[in-house]
Amino acid sequence: MRFQSHRRLLTVVLFLTCCAYQLHAADPLPSWNESAAKQNIIQFVEKVTSRDSPDYVPPELRIATFDNDGTLWTEKPQYFQVFFAIDRVKALAPQHPEWKTEEPFASVLRGDYKTAFAGGEAAVLKMVIATHSGMTTTEFEKIVNEWSKTARHPKTGRLFTQMVYQPMLELLAYMRANGFKTFIVSGGGIEFMRPWTERVYGIPPQQVVGSSVKTKFEMREDGPVLIRLPEINFIDDKAGKPVGINSHIGLRPIAAFGNSDGDIQMLEWATGTSGARFALLVHHTDAKREYAYNVGAVQALKDASEKGWTVVNMKDDWKVIYPPLKK
Amino acid sequence: MRFQSHRRLLTVVLFLTCCAYQLHAADPLPSWNESAAKQNIIQFVEKVTSRDSPDYVPPELRIATFDNDGTLWTEKPQYFQVFFAIDRVKALAPQHPEWKTEEPFASVLRGDYKTAFAGGEAAVLKMVIATHSGMTTTEFEKIVNEWSKTARHPKTGRLFTQMVYQPMLELLAYMRANGFKTFIVSGGGIEFMRPWTERVYGIPPQQVVGSSVKTKFEMREDGPVLIRLPEINFIDDKAGKPVGINSHIGLRPIAAFGNSDGDIQMLEWATGTSGARFALLVHHTDAKREYAYNVGAVQALKDASEKGWTVVNMKDDWKVIYPPLKK
Repeated sequence: MRFQSHRRLLTVVLFLTCCAYQLHAADPLPSWNESAAKQNIIQFVEKVTSRDSPDYVPPELRIATFDNDGTLWTEKPQYFQVFFAIDRVKALAPQHPEWKTEEPFASVLRGDYKTAFAGGEAAVLKMVIATHSGMTTTEFEKIVNEWSKTARHPKTGRLFTQMVYQPMLELLAYMRANGFKTFIVSGGGIEFMRPWTERVYGIPPQQVVGSSVKTKFEMREDGPVLIRLPEINFIDDKAGKPVGINSHIGLRPIAAFGNSDGDIQMLEWATGTSGARFALLVHHTDAKREYAYNVGAVQALKDASEKGWTVVNMKDDWKVIYPPLKK
Repeated sequence: MRFQSHRRLLTVVLFLTCCAYQLHAADPLPSWNESAAKQNIIQFVEKVTSRDSPDYVPPELRIATFDNDGTLWTEKPQYFQVFFAIDRVKALAPQHPEWKTEEPFASVLRGDYKTAFAGGEAAVLKMVIATHSGMTTTEFEKIVNEWSKTARHPKTGRLFTQMVYQPMLELLAYMRANGFKTFIVSGGGIEFMRPWTERVYGIPPQQVVGSSVKTKFEMREDGPVLIRLPEINFIDDKAGKPVGINSHIGLRPIAAFGNSDGDIQMLEWATGTSGARFALLVHHTDAKREYAYNVGAVQALKDASEKGWTVVNMKDDWKVIYPPLKK
């Protein structure tokens, strides 16, 4: 009996030792190369989560905000929401005979996107407003949900929701495992993202901040609805990002992740105060596996180097770009 | 040895039985009398949380929204935020000599609130805008935080934050213990509530929805700030409540709690769809321990009786109104 007890104790000790070793050995960011970006992330997380660290931050204040387009998923050759709008123009064309002669719809319907978007942001906005309003929020959610499960990227043939960055999925999970609340803060439409962010990123609807149209409450015979109106409510970009963060979260992030000039103010807002803070910029440097460009990020990259923000060089810092496809 | 093992086993069994009994016996709502309101609440919660119930709702969809004024804390003789605005007028008066002759400020400074608020909502709004803007969000948070720890109710002498309803505190905790996320959805200022809702209700800033002024991001020499502008951004009342809920939460609540006509649309939004839903109205019937009034709730009480919403009769359903004061 005494011997058996000892043997049992030994088994328990061995088991615990083994667990502790595995916990220590497991790499939370296996798709990241062992470069400065990865080290900076881990150092920051350890610094704010170690109880005996002077930079310790209690869990309720561990807020991390992530841009979406170009930070969590690809944004080329167009923002994916523009592909969605194009698909909606095609689907809705039979109900809009006037679109045959009205730009940018006429060119979109001819497949001539170059002409369609020669009108710049105004043309895109016109198309987005026309295709994103006039229905209830429930109807819109259903449309987005179906699109997110079927629409594919023109270059890779993947679903757009499979064009997310594997290293960033690991980063999101790693931060949540360390008590962070992860939020999306994107210039994209808040209701364009919410139907799939939990499934794809593990981020629930209430942790998604984005641009929006106005909505209106209406009592119908079969129950109340919210109608999406053809009017911009809020643009969650540039100086709008700290405004959106304050409105939705009410706490200042201690870590922020972006990739473009549209994220500068969010990164300033996260870092421009006392205490341990972290900012990271994804730099698109991988023409072979993704895209390589500085356009729209020149100022952000300049700020990063001046202010000590961590820059991810996609080509060198990431072992893989996209998650493996399930068979 | 064998005997000892048995005895140990017996101890463990007794201990577990005891725990199970206590778990079952512990009343999660001890300040509620054993009336229909309490039974309805418990029945609803058990129905949506029992895995083998046809009405089971997974935890991520267990969203409950609570009005604040008159639902979680007292709203008489004035909304408490009006007391805050009055205190701010007094504090800011030296910087505003023009207030000596300008209404409603002049009357407020003379202590003549009857004349001050003869101008109705417009007068209150003017005072709120004047006292709630012009500073940074951080400065405002500090002002509210200090006020919330010192300002007292004129009738009871309690801190305003001690004028919360003990039965509702128990209800919030009970719902959270059953996997619900509890949100405040109030006509009150979102940044007037956030500094103290976690401390008082256990509700963190990101789960507070309310009315707001516009804010503006600005880079200052000592870092970025958000300035509160003298312009209404959103009124979270009546038909605005479902809009605010959709914007902030992105999920439809399955339970909603209010007390006035300003909450009707929120209760409609929560209940007006399929599946198990719950709506509750706090009816102020206790002139002795709190206040008794129907004003501002006549339509809501009519709807409640027609639609089967649960009505709390404060006088009969609640054993106590306010939490005991700590000595």
